[in-house]
Order: sequence, then C-alpha cells, then structure tokens
Amino acid sequence: MLVSRFISRFSRNSLKRYRSLVCCQPDQLPVLSNCCYSIHFTDRVQGNQETNCLGSRAIHGIRYQVHHERSSIIEMDPFSLVADELSIIANSLQEMVVAEVPKLASAAEYFFKMGVEGKRFRPTVLLLMATALNIPIPKSTSDGVIDTLSDELRKRQQRIAEITEMIHVASLLHDDVLDDAETRRGIGSLNVVMGNKLSVLAGDFLLSRACVALASLKNTEVVSLLATVVEHLVTGETMQMTTTCEQRCSLEYYLQKTYYKTASLISNSCKAIALLGGQTAEVSLLAYDYGRNMGLAYQLVDDVLDFTGTSASLGKGSLSDIRHGIVTAPILFAIEEFPQLRVVVDRGFEDPADVDLALDYLGRSRGIQRARELASEHANRAVAAIDSLPESDDEDVKRSRQALVDLTQMVLSRTK
Amino acid sequence: MLVSRFISRFSRNSLKRYRSLVCCQPDQLPVLSNCCYSIHFTDRVQGNQETNCLGSRAIHGIRYQVHHERSSIIEMDPFSLVADELSIIANSLQEMVVAEVPKLASAAEYFFKMGVEGKRFRPTVLLLMATALNIPIPKSTSDGVIDTLSDELRKRQQRIAEITEMIHVASLLHDDVLDDAETRRGIGSLNVVMGNKLSVLAGDFLLSRACVALASLKNTEVVSLLATVVEHLVTGETMQMTTTCEQRCSLEYYLQKTYYKTASLISNSCKAIALLGGQTAEVSLLAYDYGRNMGLAYQLVDDVLDFTGTSASLGKGSLSDIRHGIVTAPILFAIEEFPQLRVVVDRGFEDPADVDLALDYLGRSRGIQRARELASEHANRAVAAIDSLPESDDEDVKRSRQALVDLTQMVLSRTK
Repeated sequence: MLVSRFISRFSRNSLKRYRSLVCCQPDQLPVLSNCCYSIHFTDRVQGNQETNCLGSRAIHGIRYQVHHERSSIIEMDPFSLVADELSIIANSLQEMVVAEVPKLASAAEYFFKMGVEGKRFRPTVLLLMATALNIPIPKSTSDGVIDTLSDELRKRQQRIAEITEMIHVASLLHDDVLDDAETRRGIGSLNVVMGNKLSVLAGDFLLSRACVALASLKNTEVVSLLATVVEHLVTGETMQMTTTCEQRCSLEYYLQKTYYKTASLISNSCKAIALLGGQTAEVSLLAYDYGRNMGLAYQLVDDVLDFTGTSASLGKGSLSDIRHGIVTAPILFAIEEFPQLRVVVDRGFEDPADVDLALDYLGRSRGIQRARELASEHANRAVAAIDSLPESDDEDVKRSRQALVDLTQMVLSRTK
Repeated sequence: MLVSRFISRFSRNSLKRYRSLVCCQPDQLPVLSNCCYSIHFTDRVQGNQETNCLGSRAIHGIRYQVHHERSSIIEMDPFSLVADELSIIANSLQEMVVAEVPKLASAAEYFFKMGVEGKRFRPTVLLLMATALNIPIPKSTSDGVIDTLSDELRKRQQRIAEITEMIHVASLLHDDVLDDAETRRGIGSLNVVMGNKLSVLAGDFLLSRACVALASLKNTEVVSLLATVVEHLVTGETMQMTTTCEQRCSLEYYLQKTYYKTASLISNSCKAIALLGGQTAEVSLLAYDYGRNMGLAYQLVDDVLDFTGTSASLGKGSLSDIRHGIVTAPILFAIEEFPQLRVVVDRGFEDPADVDLALDYLGRSRGIQRARELASEHANRAVAAIDSLPESDDEDVKRSRQALVDLTQMVLSRTK
C-alpha cells in the first residue's frame, strides 16, 4: 500500500513526536500506542486535491492521501489536535444524559457510549474553531476590560460542543423513528432495540437536557441560536417528507433543505462559539460561513457517495436516497442535461426499473461531477472564511485554522 | 334546576354588573350577551365544599355549586377575569407556530385553532397568578429602583403562559403518538389525521419555538426552569411506561410520576411568573407550591373520574387507565384495605375479568373517597400557599387570589 510505503520513509522516532499517533492497521503501519486516534498524512493541498494524489486510503472513516512531491511533512490529524478535549466531552456527555429512570438513561446514553460515539466531527470542528478564534477580543462595552481567552471560556465552548452533539443525537433518534431505520453507527438503531416510544422520549429528553445546558451558559442569544437549529432540523425533515413534484426538481429547494437538515447545526454552533468568545459580528459571521459551507459540502459529498460508495463507480453506493424517492444534487444536475429524466423523477422511484433508468441517465451526464464541483466550491468558501479571519501570530491559532482548512479537504475526499 | 332557581333571585340589572356573564343554557338562565364566558355561582367555601352543597350543575365543563345559606354573592368566573388576555394569548399562539413548510404549519397549529384550544386552564392560572403577585417588589440590587408591574412585565408573563401551552401541546402530540391515541379534544388526534411522523416533528417544532420564545425573555433561570419541565414530562411518561410490579403499587412512585407528568409544568411556570416579576425566593416558592398542589389535585380528581365519570358511580368512567394497566390512587388506596387486590394488580389487567374484579374491590373499599380526600388535601395546600402571600389591599390582587382559590374548588368538583 502507498500508505505503508509512505510511512516507511519515517523513522519510529520522528513519528513519536506526535503523541496521539496510532496505527489503525497494524500490519501496514507501525504501532506507536494503544490510544484510539488515527494518523493523518497529508500536505497542504491547494485547489483540487485529487489531481496530485498518488493514492489514498480510508482508515476509521478518514481518508489519508499521499502526494507525490509534496508529502514530506506529517501534519497533525485535525482530530488529534483536540483529542484530549474530545475525551473530556465524551465523559461529560455521558454524565449529562444520566436520567433518574433506568430505561430512559439507557436510551439517552445509547449513542454516547464508547465505540458508537460517531466520528465526533462536530465537536472537533467546534473546538478547532474555538482556538482558531483565539484572537484579541474588542473592548467590552459594559466594563471596558479587554477579555482574553480563559479556562472558563474554553469550558463554555466545550459545552457548546456537547450541546451540539446532544441536539444531533436527538435528531438522529427521532429521524430513525420517522424512517423506521434499522441500524445506526453500526449497531441496531434505538427504535429497533428499545422501541419507537423510548426513542421519541429519549430524543425529547436529550433536547430538554441540551436546553438546560444552554440556559446554564447564560447567553440568551446562544440559546435562541441553538433552539432555532432544532426548528431548522424539523423544517428540513418536513420539507423532505412533503416535497411537491415541482420542489423535488428544484436545486434551490434542495439546497435550502440541505442547509436546514445538515448545515444549520454546524454553522450556528460555530457562530455560538464565536459569540461566547465575545467576537464581533463580522468574526461570528465568518465562523457561521465556515460551518454553513462545510455542512453543505459534507452533504453534497454524502449525496454523491449514496450513488458511488467507496468505489467511485455509479451504482456502488447504497442508493438509499433514490430508492426512498429522495432526489439529490447529482440527479438534479443530470436533469439539466437530460430533461426527459424529469418524467422518471416525477414517477417517484417506486418502480426499481426507474432507479436503473435514472442511474443510466446519471451515468451519461456530468451529474456526479457537478455535484462534486459544487461541494468543492462550498469547501473553498469555507476555506475563504477561515482565511478572512483577523491575522494572528499565535502558533495554536494558526495550527487550528490549518486544521479547519484540512477538514474541508477531508470532507471532499472522504469515502464513507 | 337549583341553578336557575338561584339565578332567578337576581334581577337582570344586578347581573349586568358582571361584564362577562353569559348564560350557557339559555332555557334556564337569562341571556345577557353573546360572548363566550360562563357564569360562576359560588361563595367562598371553606373546608369540604360538598357537605354544604345544595346542588351543583356542570356547564361547559365547570361545576357550579349553589350553597344553602351562603350563596348570596355572584362572583366572577376565574376564566372571565382574564378573558381578554386569553384572547390575546390565543392569537399570539397562532402567530408563534407559523411555519415555513405548509404541512408543518398545519400540524403545529392543529390544537391552537379556535374551538379546540382546550380549557385554557394553565394560561388562566398563570395570568391570575401574575396579578395575584402584583405586590411591591423588593428593591432591585442592581439599580436600587423599586419596580412596579408594568405593561412590559405583563407581556413577558403572557409569554410564559404561551410557552407553557406550547410545551403542553407538544407533550400531547408526542403522548398521542406513544399511546396510539385516536382522539384529542373532541377531534381526531394529530397522529391519526396527519400521521405519526408529522406528530413527532410538530412536537419537536413546538418545543423549539417554545425554547426560542423562552430565550427572548432573557432570563436564563426561567429558561432552565421550563426546560427542566420538558425533562420531567419525559421522565413521568417513561416512569409510567417502565413501571415494575413493586413500583406500580407504590403510592410514592405514583405521586412522583404524577408530579412529573402533570404538576411540574404548572408549578414551574407559576414559579417562572414570580421570577419574571422579580419576586423573592419565598414568594416564588409559594407560587410554585400553589401550582404543584393544584396540579396534583387535578390529576387525583382525573384519576377518580376515570372510574366514576360524571355520575359518581363506579364503572361509569372510561376506565381507560386501568384497562391500559395503569394503576392510580383509588386502586392504591383500595389495596391498603384489601391486600389480596395486589395479586390482581400484579397480573396487569390484560384480562377484562381482572378489571371487573378490581372494580369490585374498589367499590367495597374507601379508595375513591380517599383519593378525593387526598385531592382535597392538595387543594387546601394550594389555598394555603395563596393565603401565605404577602398581604395586599389592591382589589385586583385580592380578586385574582380569590379566583385562584376558587379554581382549586372547581378542580375538586369538576366532572370532566
């Protein structure tokens, strides 16, 4: 494997500099420790990453890319930069969902247990954003004192990451009930394991705990921001459930729904991180812009992967969207090239033959490519938001900003 | 009817003094206007109301009692005291649940439409409490100015009433999904009319809008208080769903569940009214105590009515609790007299013959009577909380406090 050939160029000693390195595939990469973080080999990639890519490999959901000329630096994996805090947050989440009634406790903690806590993508983004915004804060109008980033502030920002995860998991629990989902994060979905009733109740419970935690931050703008996210999640889900034929073929409708369902949570929680840090409206908007574009890019790639899976060949994905009659960006772009596809889409994909027909049109169109291009465009806008932040000489700030940039590329190149 | 004989003693002129009077049964009572409020005949009743009662009659869900010697005063119906504000709140609620997606809007407003808005019991209690607490507020520590009840404060307290209704309706929507309920407030339940998915989403939507509205009050203690209520509603529901045999026969467990399911919302929102009014911890606790005991009394009467219905004879109620295996106070008291009933209860009432057997035991026991006595005890404690409020000479304050006392009696004597 290219990854192992690449790693072989580094001595064990040089790798030791990175305390959270671990080999996910012990037969190919040197084992350095037993901790659970992964190693990330990449260089700073400008523009289209894939053209210069010698090869790539997905390990634990993260795609490691090896570049021909420029792969002479091992950078920190964005996740490992905040690894210690992710552990704190994981513990804190388990404590926050403790409930008086045993069944409710089991249901609420179901997706916070070790091993099924997910990729922790959102907490990672939020913690990196917290450091990335560690810039001198303008004078407070109330007391005239220049505040600096303190332990207290960091704890409050960690709390935003926890609340965001709670809202996310609550929405997963309710979505799984709505969709009669059978699995989630590789284990049985809660509705299957404990029934729909407990899933609905556990979702409500997480929302109420999230709201109590929000209130404890004593910042009503932040409470309002994250409560609006819950409304957006519901709105996006309802938009998807109640689409008319006209709306189903509208890219604008699709993007609005995608914002509500996926991008609102990360964008508004990024903004909450900035607001808690006492940042200006401009900086808060940049944080929001990063989250919004990152979220949209993430979902666009997700929609592509639903067609291609890990193989990049059409039809290798789970095709779960199209089989449920959900029309995403690749098909919408394909319709622009083949208007006759619209008739197939309008029939709703209840007939599996229509799925094949749509895949045929899609294969002959630039639908997949254009969806990837749109994802790339949003990733670039996310990078632009980071680049527009006030300059900082602080090494931690610079490293976190780079990690946020790297994350956009990881989102684009991810395969699951 | 005693009610009409009683009313006949009053001239049309003397009745006109009460602007919101209306005759609900035009054939028996003189019609004064076309407005929709009802007339309330009662005197201040001390202790056990029923012993001195000449007769009573239920009109529009409110029981009017006519007392032999003491019925020489016509008092205002508690609901009519806040009638104008209830209309404002009804309109405001309809505006607050406007959603971008048409189906979500229809689902969210389903129980806020005119005619199915329910008894508006909670908003009535909260508005009366707001006036009842209109007492000089201790000096504010921040600016040293003695604040008085202002329009602005009243609007914020109205908002608490709206938020409370939204949380209540959200919990109804989710409960109906959990229980596969078919009707609610005399119309098809939302889960039947629009499906479980939209009911779950509409409930989430109402919770998020309630949270946004809460945040707008800019009082994080109040946000936290009402978010905790949502947690209590979920906890109560889960307690009921996951009861062990031991717990099912515990009066303590029953009362705790009843507090979570019914009394927490009204008690904590009463407290929120006090907190917004800047009241002391002592006064806020009295407001909470009123709500808590009122809520418990309400549920205890509800549990009795499930056995007796309007007729006061056993078995005339819907028996829906016991048929669903839910054991309430009357049965718990009956078990104390007939321990052998415990065996029947433990079998879970899946066999209808066990329901008949339990009714037989219940009929021979003082279960119904003791449940009513416990309700009466809680009503008395609610009255005691009102009586413990700092004295006031303000007529509006006194009238609202009396109305809150009257409400406790209406709760005891209600028949549906």
